[in-house]
Amino acid sequence: MENRLKRGLAKLQEVDGKSGDAVVNSMNTIFPDLVKYMIEYTFGDIYSRDILDLKAKEMAVVAALTALGNARPQLNVHINGALNVGCSINEIKEIILQMSAYAGFPASINAMNELKDVLKEREEQGINDCIGKEPTSSVLPAERYEVGLKELSELDSQQAELLKEAYKDIAPELVQFIICGQADIMARDNLNKKFRELSTISALTALGTAGPQLKFHISAGLNIGLTAEDIKEIMLLISVYAGFPQAINGTNILKEVLTERSAKEKVKAE
Amino acid sequence: MENRLKRGLAKLQEVDGKSGDAVVNSMNTIFPDLVKYMIEYTFGDIYSRDILDLKAKEMAVVAALTALGNARPQLNVHINGALNVGCSINEIKEIILQMSAYAGFPASINAMNELKDVLKEREEQGINDCIGKEPTSSVLPAERYEVGLKELSELDSQQAELLKEAYKDIAPELVQFIICGQADIMARDNLNKKFRELSTISALTALGTAGPQLKFHISAGLNIGLTAEDIKEIMLLISVYAGFPQAINGTNILKEVLTERSAKEKVKAE
Amino acid sequence: MENRLKRGLAKLQEVDGKSGDAVVNSMNTIFPDLVKYMIEYTFGDIYSRDILDLKAKEMAVVAALTALGNARPQLNVHINGALNVGCSINEIKEIILQMSAYAGFPASINAMNELKDVLKEREEQGINDCIGKEPTSSVLPAERYEVGLKELSELDSQQAELLKEAYKDIAPELVQFIICGQADIMARDNLNKKFRELSTISALTALGTAGPQLKFHISAGLNIGLTAEDIKEIMLLISVYAGFPQAINGTNILKEVLTERSAKEKVKAE
Repeated sequence: MENRLKRGLAKLQEVDGKSGDAVVNSMNTIFPDLVKYMIEYTFGDIYSRDILDLKAKEMAVVAALTALGNARPQLNVHINGALNVGCSINEIKEIILQMSAYAGFPASINAMNELKDVLKEREEQGINDCIGKEPTSSVLPAERYEVGLKELSELDSQQAELLKEAYKDIAPELVQFIICGQADIMARDNLNKKFRELSTISALTALGTAGPQLKFHISAGLNIGLTAEDIKEIMLLISVYAGFPQAINGTNILKEVLTERSAKEKVKAE
Repeated sequence: MENRLKRGLAKLQEVDGKSGDAVVNSMNTIFPDLVKYMIEYTFGDIYSRDILDLKAKEMAVVAALTALGNARPQLNVHINGALNVGCSINEIKEIILQMSAYAGFPASINAMNELKDVLKEREEQGINDCIGKEPTSSVLPAERYEVGLKELSELDSQQAELLKEAYKDIAPELVQFIICGQADIMARDNLNKKFRELSTISALTALGTAGPQLKFHISAGLNIGLTAEDIKEIMLLISVYAGFPQAINGTNILKEVLTERSAKEKVKAE
Repeated sequence: MENRLKRGLAKLQEVDGKSGDAVVNSMNTIFPDLVKYMIEYTFGDIYSRDILDLKAKEMAVVAALTALGNARPQLNVHINGALNVGCSINEIKEIILQMSAYAGFPASINAMNELKDVLKEREEQGINDCIGKEPTSSVLPAERYEVGLKELSELDSQQAELLKEAYKDIAPELVQFIICGQADIMARDNLNKKFRELSTISALTALGTAGPQLKFHISAGLNIGLTAEDIKEIMLLISVYAGFPQAINGTNILKEVLTERSAKEKVKAE
């Protein structure tokens, strides 16, 4: 237990390299205790857990900070961190693009500008980042709705019908835009669905204003192969980046989803 | 359907002119797909809908970005857009002032500083914006409470009594401040009530933290002549600026209001 | 009543001195009515109330603006204000540190950087601020859990058991981190618990995304000696900094807590 600080410093170095040092040095002159707690908790406790690897963690943090939109210096640090631990440039772009659906285009555009700055800085420092894959397919305009339906059904087989039924009188266009948006984003095959859902769960937990959508995406994440343990790790990460209240509220929603799923499975078994 | 991009580019040009080009060019160097989706969805799909005109749309977007407070570059673009599509300077000031009640004075002051910057830039570019009307009346200190009651009753005839009853033991001052605040803002007659309520509905939907107040203002908006169709358009706009979860949650509240009103009308009819 | 503006200007001078003038002058050139309403309401109405003193008010505002993270110019003004009305540098540091638990480390780190800037500016102006006390005790790693339990029990004697029971299957680590976090922050004895709880209540009300946690901290605040009147003042303050919807929603939670406590006391009395 006495090694939280030591372990945290090593993990911080692994993830953030020089930009982590800069944060530490800047804070140390004003309030060393804050730095100590931050390193011990964030890096000694949370980043040192091994259920999600560093790449998944950094993607989820980039997603959350993109969606929150009010912590630009930390977004810079974690885009650097994501690149340092093996995310490709295109994977980070996919995460930022995806956030347009969950936090709006301003959030995505501002984060994309931050990515641009980070890449320029890293190039100047002679760092050679991996560009990564481009999406291999593109969706024709006339196929967007059908492709979107297929994508949505991979997350949840009943969701499209539920949306259509719930909003048929009040807002059928909204449902159509949601389904077509699935084709624009989720059909891009250069980031796997597990990373996509982890990132969405992370962002919605951090925002704290989208309970029903968080519930859907936790369930969708479990459907495509995330484990409850994976999702718990996201809640712990969010305690660092948006505070314990959001981590607790997210965990409550996870608990609700797991309870409902286990009740359904019991019914099936009988 | 294949024309979403073409239609979007034309609409973007109409609304944002040069500052739209700047956003597009800046993003195109880092991630052209994000620009494409943004233009197709925001301008090709949403801004091209004709239920609300461009002036109403831009006012609602300025309101939402003022309230969110975390997307200053986009606030700049949309203050420019609002002026481009026919909002007067004073109408924009009224929207920003009004947000002090719904998102606090810091949000209003920071947006007002952005307006100041935009006006300076436009003056330097030789653009001559319409100043617009000043309010014709002013409320005497001793009359604030009475004027506030009258203003609030135009939004909802029972709201003042409901507030007084609900908070009589716990916080009568809060109710008094709310009623007097109505006199300070809503009695200003240089922006019509429909624009005022559209803007408030837009901001509260974007924030996603004020369900009961959003419900009240959707109902008040309907009372003063907005249609359900108008309010649906705000929800679609918010999907662009704060993401689909807030658009869906706002639509659910609209649905709730409409269901309750239609139940009440049935009772009356019987 | 006619003196709201005069009273507000005097109070603004008392709290903010020169940095208040700067805000007023900057806004006056673009929209004098916004300045007038801001001064009348914020300083003439709210800051002139005497239930909480200026020091408590400024701490609560620094907490809220730190947590919101989207109003940096106002955070600068109110860190200055807090120092002007008698907060020590270390007291402000404690508030900012504490917010790491309720709004995440990015919020704390960004606010700490703002404090650093403010202190540099004030030093250059020859202002000699009081540094204040350091915490007198430090918690050994092996004792964090026990100290955290003790700290939490001072806020609420049953909370630790409730948390452990609720999350024993789903997230026992989260509960452990929460309890140990209490030892890191709440056991620091250079800021009294009343200020700590006022600040947390203020921040959670402003965020508007943490209803269950706000309920807990209102109740905890009452347990350690805050009065319902003190907490009402926080709600009024938040109407200024995050708008009336959050003030109303926070007041509703206060009302719920008071109703439940009075029901419990009746049962005890019988």
